[in-house]
Amino acid sequence: MKAKQALILGTAFGALCALAASRSSYAEPKKDPIVRLAELEIDPAHLYEYKALLKEEIEASIRIEPGVLTLYAVTVKEHPNQIRLFEMYRDQASYQAHLKTPHFLKYKTQTQQMVKSLTLIETDPFLLGSKFK
Amino acid sequence: MKAKQALILGTAFGALCALAASRSSYAEPKKDPIVRLAELEIDPAHLYEYKALLKEEIEASIRIEPGVLTLYAVTVKEHPNQIRLFEMYRDQASYQAHLKTPHFLKYKTQTQQMVKSLTLIETDPFLLGSKFK
Repeated sequence: MKAKQALILGTAFGALCALAASRSSYAEPKKDPIVRLAELEIDPAHLYEYKALLKEEIEASIRIEPGVLTLYAVTVKEHPNQIRLFEMYRDQASYQAHLKTPHFLKYKTQTQQMVKSLTLIETDPFLLGSKFK
Repeated sequence: MKAKQALILGTAFGALCALAASRSSYAEPKKDPIVRLAELEIDPAHLYEYKALLKEEIEASIRIEPGVLTLYAVTVKEHPNQIRLFEMYRDQASYQAHLKTPHFLKYKTQTQQMVKSLTLIETDPFLLGSKFK
């Protein structure tokens, strides 16, 4: 009977540990993610093509790279060729790895002539409040 | 036997429907969330106080308001008094409701003299790629 109780307790404890492990390994940002903002102006003649390449790049990064947490792309209202990006990477190593991926290099090379200006803004995250965790 | 097969199929279908329902009711943004960017310059003499008020406002909004999806606050590197916000609301109604909450009004009133400049940028979301769903 004692052995059975121990087994039940052990199983319950194991289940709790598994739950805790699955929660802590979930894709939450670590304490200091890298956040970068980018402001781009795209040649209107190539906007459609540019957006197709950007979409492909974002989807591949989020799907393939564990350290790419968020790539939000929006256009400024009334100025559809002005793109703003909000990029969040798990850490510096993830960001550096991202820059070397085939999908990023393809995007960078193929859009080079379409981008009229690019401003990169390095930031320090202050508070990343979100429903999505 | 046919009745049993139908039962099994029915149960499997029910489970799939439950799964689909639970996924669609999860806190994902609807198709057209409202995304706004804000660029603020804070009076350095009041930066500490300002950030405390901003923190309180963001935490309350995310905790209390179902339609406030994301409030990301970062500072520009080397310019700690330049704040950038990335705000995502479920829809226009959620955004309008947010503007009338006591915690937002408190933040707005109490920080008014600390904000040297404020630029609001309305956007159209293009692709909101994220690990957090």
